[in-house]
Amino acid sequence: MDYPSILERIQSDITPLLGQGKVATYIPALASADPHDFAMSLQLVNGESYHIGLSDKTFSIQSISKVFMYEMALSLFEESLVGRVNVEPSGNPFNSLVQLEYEKGIPRNPFINPGAIVVADMLTSYYGASAEDSILHFFKNACNDFSITINKEIFHSEYTSGYRNYALANLMKSFGNIHNEVEMTLDTYFNACSISANTTQLARSTLHLACQGLDPITSNRILTFEHTKRINALMLTCGHYDASGEFAYHVGLPGKSGVGGGIIAIVPNTMSIAVYSPALNHHGNSLIGTKALELFSHYSGHTIF
Amino acid sequence: MDYPSILERIQSDITPLLGQGKVATYIPALASADPHDFAMSLQLVNGESYHIGLSDKTFSIQSISKVFMYEMALSLFEESLVGRVNVEPSGNPFNSLVQLEYEKGIPRNPFINPGAIVVADMLTSYYGASAEDSILHFFKNACNDFSITINKEIFHSEYTSGYRNYALANLMKSFGNIHNEVEMTLDTYFNACSISANTTQLARSTLHLACQGLDPITSNRILTFEHTKRINALMLTCGHYDASGEFAYHVGLPGKSGVGGGIIAIVPNTMSIAVYSPALNHHGNSLIGTKALELFSHYSGHTIF
Amino acid sequence: MDYPSILERIQSDITPLLGQGKVATYIPALASADPHDFAMSLQLVNGESYHIGLSDKTFSIQSISKVFMYEMALSLFEESLVGRVNVEPSGNPFNSLVQLEYEKGIPRNPFINPGAIVVADMLTSYYGASAEDSILHFFKNACNDFSITINKEIFHSEYTSGYRNYALANLMKSFGNIHNEVEMTLDTYFNACSISANTTQLARSTLHLACQGLDPITSNRILTFEHTKRINALMLTCGHYDASGEFAYHVGLPGKSGVGGGIIAIVPNTMSIAVYSPALNHHGNSLIGTKALELFSHYSGHTIF
Amino acid sequence: MDYPSILERIQSDITPLLGQGKVATYIPALASADPHDFAMSLQLVNGESYHIGLSDKTFSIQSISKVFMYEMALSLFEESLVGRVNVEPSGNPFNSLVQLEYEKGIPRNPFINPGAIVVADMLTSYYGASAEDSILHFFKNACNDFSITINKEIFHSEYTSGYRNYALANLMKSFGNIHNEVEMTLDTYFNACSISANTTQLARSTLHLACQGLDPITSNRILTFEHTKRINALMLTCGHYDASGEFAYHVGLPGKSGVGGGIIAIVPNTMSIAVYSPALNHHGNSLIGTKALELFSHYSGHTIF
Repeated sequence: MDYPSILERIQSDITPLLGQGKVATYIPALASADPHDFAMSLQLVNGESYHIGLSDKTFSIQSISKVFMYEMALSLFEESLVGRVNVEPSGNPFNSLVQLEYEKGIPRNPFINPGAIVVADMLTSYYGASAEDSILHFFKNACNDFSITINKEIFHSEYTSGYRNYALANLMKSFGNIHNEVEMTLDTYFNACSISANTTQLARSTLHLACQGLDPITSNRILTFEHTKRINALMLTCGHYDASGEFAYHVGLPGKSGVGGGIIAIVPNTMSIAVYSPALNHHGNSLIGTKALELFSHYSGHTIF
Repeated sequence: MDYPSILERIQSDITPLLGQGKVATYIPALASADPHDFAMSLQLVNGESYHIGLSDKTFSIQSISKVFMYEMALSLFEESLVGRVNVEPSGNPFNSLVQLEYEKGIPRNPFINPGAIVVADMLTSYYGASAEDSILHFFKNACNDFSITINKEIFHSEYTSGYRNYALANLMKSFGNIHNEVEMTLDTYFNACSISANTTQLARSTLHLACQGLDPITSNRILTFEHTKRINALMLTCGHYDASGEFAYHVGLPGKSGVGGGIIAIVPNTMSIAVYSPALNHHGNSLIGTKALELFSHYSGHTIF
Repeated sequence: MDYPSILERIQSDITPLLGQGKVATYIPALASADPHDFAMSLQLVNGESYHIGLSDKTFSIQSISKVFMYEMALSLFEESLVGRVNVEPSGNPFNSLVQLEYEKGIPRNPFINPGAIVVADMLTSYYGASAEDSILHFFKNACNDFSITINKEIFHSEYTSGYRNYALANLMKSFGNIHNEVEMTLDTYFNACSISANTTQLARSTLHLACQGLDPITSNRILTFEHTKRINALMLTCGHYDASGEFAYHVGLPGKSGVGGGIIAIVPNTMSIAVYSPALNHHGNSLIGTKALELFSHYSGHTIF
Repeated sequence: MDYPSILERIQSDITPLLGQGKVATYIPALASADPHDFAMSLQLVNGESYHIGLSDKTFSIQSISKVFMYEMALSLFEESLVGRVNVEPSGNPFNSLVQLEYEKGIPRNPFINPGAIVVADMLTSYYGASAEDSILHFFKNACNDFSITINKEIFHSEYTSGYRNYALANLMKSFGNIHNEVEMTLDTYFNACSISANTTQLARSTLHLACQGLDPITSNRILTFEHTKRINALMLTCGHYDASGEFAYHVGLPGKSGVGGGIIAIVPNTMSIAVYSPALNHHGNSLIGTKALELFSHYSGHTIF
């Protein structure tokens, strides 16, 4: 397939839309992003890769880190995850407390904030103070790029002003579902959210999810086949908060978004994809990024359905 | 692949579990089902089919009819569906009124009761008194079997005692999202629920969903490629009420269940599947049927992820 | 106390506000009310009465009938009310289904729609087809005026278009908390809502609630002392839907409003009050009527606190 | 009236019930209370007082402090309270986050936890680090007893383990409705909750609420007449969380409970009452204390209705 032409066609289609949506403003470091930025990278399982736009520009991966944390948790804790975090779509915004209170502090899935905070808590119990380093290392290793860093300015902003995440963590602690001090667990969580990467790196780091858990370039096994299926299933049903159904309906690929403006998507057995555009729709997903993936699915015919 | 052996292995695995779960009791005609009944049918796109258990025993397809009704609605109304029924997982039980009230009478998706009632209302507006015949005809045609009938005893039970469905329809009517008389729309809806079929017929009738909308045996086009993708996406994210995430996570195939005990599932480009076992889990999905599909996915390796 | 002067002062204060708020529009017969209409009647326990404005103009008492129905139910069923309708403020709008679903079809209190529908159902079981006549008779007797009638035009409007009340009744029936056919119970309920009275009659009909259940003029006992206390307590905590707290805070008297624009209030041992002004605030209570009662409490110093 | 006999009759009636209910266990200092303890004090406006049981035994007043904090807030901030805390019954448990999220961080009333935390925040803004001393002083002054102290052990327990209150405060801070650091505001809040008093002192400290805001013994004005009415109205509609309606229905007096086992109640123009019994019903109100007040209302005939 002629991927370079498809990418050019997508860029041409989305250019008139740049400027729509709203950059996340809850922390200054995100608010300064340029809503006209755009990048898209395709990483094929055969090692080829194709890029368009600002594919070298790093941004905060935010909730995309939830995928990597849950990959680690599946490998480390599999059985113990039962009863601490479920695998159902929530039908609610990413940071809602309502459902969490009705359901006694057990989050619906690991790809909404409370679920990822529980996962961060489990990783904190296991790795202690080095939890953040372990998550970063997992990401670097999956990416096969050891230059990746955590943006400490963003971390600091979130750590000091993420009141709703403190609310979620304290609510779960009141139900006994956070085992460490709230501050320690959120330290891990906010560090993971603050990993900086560009679309080239993001696409590369998720290539194993298109390849049954194996990195086809280095031949490193990152995840088992069984766990890879589950990650992809979760991304399909829960990867875009309360717009997950829309994404499945219009794009038809497993994916995960972050409020930093990034989205990853997987074409099983074929490729991993990363897009970046920081202006968000009202569900908190990249508006242009979602559109670009919809166009990609349409032009390439790639879909799991 | 040796499908007959896989089916035998599944039957052997599930036999000790028969009797678990509870048969739906809200109408007498369903309550009399035998919880030990089991059937499973595979219909391959190459025309071959494999069966085990009571694959000739008919049962009430119930919510599986929601798939056929929405296929018809996609073909007839595409654009007009926007604003009347969404495509998001609900995160709530199939017949909940809570979300419907918060969201002003617009159902989350067409595979929960209120969503299917809206679809039935649209079909009733279009076809008038012949709406039920048109739905039955669509099903017969997809199945290429014109002997299929509606079980009028079940229809009558639901029509006279389905108070919660009356509550849902009246609530939506108060928001202006039901255009016909509540009784007329529910007449259509309950008739569609009361279609009787066996697993052989159900698997056959959904074969086009494994084949881009084309019936590969008759070469009839039942649905466009684009609409077929959407039906499969919806079944994956919304096909099992508030257990849709679990089904995607453990089975990894698009599917749709009904309280009569049937479940259909699709392996794109390969086959359609139907299972039957009337005892339900607490989400209202066939307990053994779900288990059988999980085993099938495991033994065959078939998954979309 | 110089009640005529107080009434004049109130009328002068509210005159500039007439026209604010919105007349109920969900049925034509209510929508045609003149938002500039105003009336207020004081009925003292010593037999004196004072009136200002259109105190002879009849209107639909609507939810004020919930008080009379619950008085009858307390006398007839006392113990059997437990488990069918509670006595807690709901914190929700008058016709919400959300709480009702969470609480398994048991309404929070008899002064919101679902609670009054359960009471109507109990009266229907007891009186059969004459339930509406029995309610009307109770009202006439309390009023000592046998000329009062039911407005059948309003009844008919509500009976044919009250979809949300049908939704509430069907939801409760699905939980087993409606014992008659939904249509029969709602026939009773809508008839009670459609009783027509003016403020003179309304104040007179509730005088016994200011007098430990005894009509001080005729010496008829309408209610026991114990039940009278409970009616007044319920009016204070639940009489104005989700504005009951505001009413207690600013007016400080037990009261009950109706969407027809009427409000009754009780000064224990002193008087009963009725006001009428059909334009409503966003809680569904008469905007001017509420204001008039607040001024009355302020000018007269009458309060239970 | 023969109050000593009434008190003896109450004690005799409740003795067989002692041991029912459950002592609050969420902090060790409360968990050690003896569920058989009982005390009741009547403080008449004429200066007489009557006591039965352990009326000298101090306990943690907990949520009863919400009344004193709101009295201070009414005097200091009246107008500014609008938009920060409402005056409606919540219909939900005392520490629910659900409603708070739907209503954008504005608590329903000042007598549930989030409402009192907002009030504590306003007092913290006004008094700074001396907020807790100012609240304690208000209480001592109302009681005319300057020996009262804060139990620092209880304060410390709540400050280090009150996760749900941290969740509430952080959620409100995310909506901009907490102006100080969460820890500072909760320091004030938990100190107020940890005031220790016995029933003699509690009854004395609330006597002004039975007397239009004036302390009839010292002739000190504690509160204006208008504000006193509002406090009593709020206690009636919101004083017992989601059992406020039951309390109004069965007791018929304004009151406020605390999880320490205390309840205060007011008979306007006549007396203030305090009861103590640490075992709670499932709403978090003293089970025996509620029963004792119901008996008192019954035997004395005192009611506001």
